[in-house]
Amino acid sequence: MTKRLRFAVVLSGCGVFDGAEIQESVLTLLAISRRGGDVQCFAPDIPQHHVIDHYRNQPSPGETRNVLTESARIARGKIRPLSEYSTDESDILIIPGGFGAAKNLCSFAFDGASCSVNRDVEKALRAAHAARHPIGVWCIAPVVVARVLGNVTVTVGADATVEEALEAMGAGHRPASARDAILDRENRIVSTPCYMAPAPLSDIADGIQKAVDELAAMVGT
Amino acid sequence: MTKRLRFAVVLSGCGVFDGAEIQESVLTLLAISRRGGDVQCFAPDIPQHHVIDHYRNQPSPGETRNVLTESARIARGKIRPLSEYSTDESDILIIPGGFGAAKNLCSFAFDGASCSVNRDVEKALRAAHAARHPIGVWCIAPVVVARVLGNVTVTVGADATVEEALEAMGAGHRPASARDAILDRENRIVSTPCYMAPAPLSDIADGIQKAVDELAAMVGT
Repeated sequence: MTKRLRFAVVLSGCGVFDGAEIQESVLTLLAISRRGGDVQCFAPDIPQHHVIDHYRNQPSPGETRNVLTESARIARGKIRPLSEYSTDESDILIIPGGFGAAKNLCSFAFDGASCSVNRDVEKALRAAHAARHPIGVWCIAPVVVARVLGNVTVTVGADATVEEALEAMGAGHRPASARDAILDRENRIVSTPCYMAPAPLSDIADGIQKAVDELAAMVGT
Repeated sequence: MTKRLRFAVVLSGCGVFDGAEIQESVLTLLAISRRGGDVQCFAPDIPQHHVIDHYRNQPSPGETRNVLTESARIARGKIRPLSEYSTDESDILIIPGGFGAAKNLCSFAFDGASCSVNRDVEKALRAAHAARHPIGVWCIAPVVVARVLGNVTVTVGADATVEEALEAMGAGHRPASARDAILDRENRIVSTPCYMAPAPLSDIADGIQKAVDELAAMVGT
């Protein structure tokens, strides 16, 4: 009998411009379901950096939302504060993309390579890495793991500005398209570009499935 | 060359408890992408009935959100007010589920079989039906089409209370599991239970893909 793997998925809100990218997040849950894994979603219990009106694509001043509360929408309420994440209860850690990864999980969207990282996010990534758990980062989320772990190899599609920042943080970059998964076997990190390499949603789903399958294959190796 | 079908997807917010069910909505977009169709999302430009804190599963009093603005999160901003829907620009109409379908698109969650239906939603459904466009309704959304069109045959999984209400509205019900799609060929209506028949996400994705493929097969028949 194949072991049923336990995936921890770290969300950063609910909506591409100020939170977790919804489509990437759901396709991650789908890929895990197709792989026969169990999911526990997490999010930091902090205010969002800001709220963006996604219809008008402009800030919604005066509005405040909480990252954990909004992330719960994607997870249908089945979510825990990221402070409760433990390597004892999971085998694999995944951070989908969306601006939330660069605005709420860290400050990359504003500070680039010198960004600060949320304490719970940093703690979870260091714990997963120390336990040799495979870590998956989609879209822009590779900047978070690069800032915390430094010398890792990831993809963000083919974005020159972000590539430069990754190098400044000590990380290596490999170009990729939406259907690709890039493996850093030494650090057990898998990345896929998702919406950083615009493509039909079915290609993004394929890339995420490939990445999830590669993460699963790394467990225990 | 196969005709590239144009799908109109009507969202009802962003979050299972007060809006469109996010997972069903994204899997609908994925199924359309896999079928090679084009998507235009729509939502009524009205206030949500209320806002539910999805982490605590309780109302968030004093908070107000707009159905179109929140639906835009799922659609990555590519959405139009439902008042602009026209049968000239689409071939198929789909309404995913979530409490938003029963709280924002109509008042079924509060008024049952005697519910009122939002004017733009009713107009779109009547126009699609008159043009003999296939209509897809997932999860709880069959109650909306039953209230507007009356004598249709749909599934909501196996929920006795909702089944009774469907009958009171003049509609027929067929039980189904998450991987099934129920066809009303006369009215060109396809329904699938999604989260009304709890199942692994991969089964829900399969049911939605089956329903989308059946809708596509009905076009022009």
